[in-house]
Amino acid sequence: MIKTKGLEGVVLTDSNITSIVGTQLSYVGYAIDDLVESATFEEVIYLLWYKRLPTQAELTEFKDNLFEAMELPEEIYPHIDYMDFNKIHPMSALRSIISLLGAYDPEDSLTHEEAKMEKAVRLQARILIVITTIARIRQGKEVLQPKREYSYAENFLYLLKGDPVDPLEAKAFDQALILHADHELNASTFTARVCVATLSDLYSGLTAAISALKGELHGGANEEVIKMLMEIGEVDRAIPYIKEKMANKEKIMGMGHRVYKEGDPRAKFLKEMSRQLTKKAGQEKWYQISEIIEDYIKNEKGLPANVDFYSASTYHSMGIDHDLFTPIFAMSRTSGWVAHMLEQYDNNRLIRPRSNYVGPKKLDFIPLSER
Amino acid sequence: MIKTKGLEGVVLTDSNITSIVGTQLSYVGYAIDDLVESATFEEVIYLLWYKRLPTQAELTEFKDNLFEAMELPEEIYPHIDYMDFNKIHPMSALRSIISLLGAYDPEDSLTHEEAKMEKAVRLQARILIVITTIARIRQGKEVLQPKREYSYAENFLYLLKGDPVDPLEAKAFDQALILHADHELNASTFTARVCVATLSDLYSGLTAAISALKGELHGGANEEVIKMLMEIGEVDRAIPYIKEKMANKEKIMGMGHRVYKEGDPRAKFLKEMSRQLTKKAGQEKWYQISEIIEDYIKNEKGLPANVDFYSASTYHSMGIDHDLFTPIFAMSRTSGWVAHMLEQYDNNRLIRPRSNYVGPKKLDFIPLSER
Repeated sequence: MIKTKGLEGVVLTDSNITSIVGTQLSYVGYAIDDLVESATFEEVIYLLWYKRLPTQAELTEFKDNLFEAMELPEEIYPHIDYMDFNKIHPMSALRSIISLLGAYDPEDSLTHEEAKMEKAVRLQARILIVITTIARIRQGKEVLQPKREYSYAENFLYLLKGDPVDPLEAKAFDQALILHADHELNASTFTARVCVATLSDLYSGLTAAISALKGELHGGANEEVIKMLMEIGEVDRAIPYIKEKMANKEKIMGMGHRVYKEGDPRAKFLKEMSRQLTKKAGQEKWYQISEIIEDYIKNEKGLPANVDFYSASTYHSMGIDHDLFTPIFAMSRTSGWVAHMLEQYDNNRLIRPRSNYVGPKKLDFIPLSER
Repeated sequence: MIKTKGLEGVVLTDSNITSIVGTQLSYVGYAIDDLVESATFEEVIYLLWYKRLPTQAELTEFKDNLFEAMELPEEIYPHIDYMDFNKIHPMSALRSIISLLGAYDPEDSLTHEEAKMEKAVRLQARILIVITTIARIRQGKEVLQPKREYSYAENFLYLLKGDPVDPLEAKAFDQALILHADHELNASTFTARVCVATLSDLYSGLTAAISALKGELHGGANEEVIKMLMEIGEVDRAIPYIKEKMANKEKIMGMGHRVYKEGDPRAKFLKEMSRQLTKKAGQEKWYQISEIIEDYIKNEKGLPANVDFYSASTYHSMGIDHDLFTPIFAMSRTSGWVAHMLEQYDNNRLIRPRSNYVGPKKLDFIPLSER
């Protein structure tokens, strides 16, 4: 028996999906830098699921399938219409609606390759519709219909904010989706794999993954970062704020990473996006405050910024509500969650570690009347 | 790095909850045999959560708190009223309703001990109401109100089937709840711990656990066992049926266990319950068929029956719908899931193993137009 808290140093499985070596991140053999610069999110989803880049014809068909699946079944609308999205956190709403969509979708046929991939497309398409529907309803705005000519990223921004979709925002958002698409056995992906290793279905796995991503040590981190930026408010408040936090031994969110000790290779892209988009929005201060914090924490604690840190100011500058940051993370990570669940099904073994019992032993049972 | 598929041979954590040594199972130091024979399910829940048996006064208060929490908030009823429980599998319905209850419950205060325990009581009480409500509604029967003088087991049977509650059934059901209450880091409990180790909330953890329990390699097994018994139908069909299954290399559910190689210490109690209750119901054949299968598989493959095997005929003889077997498992295991989530919060570390990338490496990116 090997004892390891948090499973540090444990390799669960061989995998064909994502490689992290030092600060090098790649999806199915392609460096993240190349994918961010030259591919689209749809190509990356295809890559993660089919383990190769699509041809033009394959990509066209895949995008078409995604578009066609961008609708929710009628049964779900009474639930959505009834929920008060101004009171419910969107992550709880998303978790619930994905679970309900599973309840109304026929059970998975795990042996049927085509049916499995159709369900995968449905999950990826529907989660976009769920998030944008929640966002529009609680703003009292009309729910829009996706457009066939739009990319996944464009459709998201369109359904969230209406036309026109800004090309710089769409490009940045597409890149952010690519950067968040997969990250090996992070906690939510691992949750999904443990879940479906019981041969539970894809919706259950997605529901479980969203449940895990919700935690502030995981997907909830980018929302915590923007809360911090808002609390700070002005550039000259940054250093005093952080000093006080550190004096109180409070955690600064968005810094450091379990796997990347030398720096998160995704952070530089989000930093550049944040720089460009905050400038365009006339909100440079959020970028500036972020950079001050990053430098300070790096010097003081040796912790570099991670993927969550600059995504906060990036999404904020795009006018996206703060409590949608984690649902957006879920939307992009759905591509990775699905890839990992499919891989788990293909070569399955129940995932079940042991614990080491350290409590009292061999106690004599004392009847209630004598206690 | 240690590589281990399914995490076999890995100890995640120290724990004060459950010990499994050989075929000895104990909760917080008390042998399962003593608890099944002398304690009630409520005492066991208290034991798992507070790490000691309650005094009479503590037990009375705890039962009262459970009873008081046996109601659902008004906001949930439009969802329940709308769902067609004849079409939706109760595990999908349960997963969704628990998630929705979380959406309508104020967020957890993880630092507040009392608030945490109140939420724990609410989860344990509400899951009983959810399952019995689903069961009554789909039978077109009136939803009943729990009774203060009834135990947890009695209230479940009453809310499911109405009065009178049969004492033998109530005793057997209470024992079944105790036997299923906890089982160390089984797949659903492990899912819950991985989920809340991100500091996600208790409802998210419970939703994730239900998602995992749904799989046929885990909680879904008892439903698979009863399906098999129904397919066999008659005693003299048992051996030919099993021989055919084995010839086709199909898995026989309810046999063998990852942890217990020498036999599941819970099985003997459920076997005795099955014997008594099938006899009382004039349905001995389900017990007889089960015993024939058990002996045959033990001889042929060396695999003894596990906890799921005789729970199938036991619950069937009590007139419980087959697709409620796994929800009932979830209801009893909620006590253990909660205990493990609380333990995880108390000494938390993000749970994140690694994978070993074996796919292609350092691929040159080829632009779409050249593919």
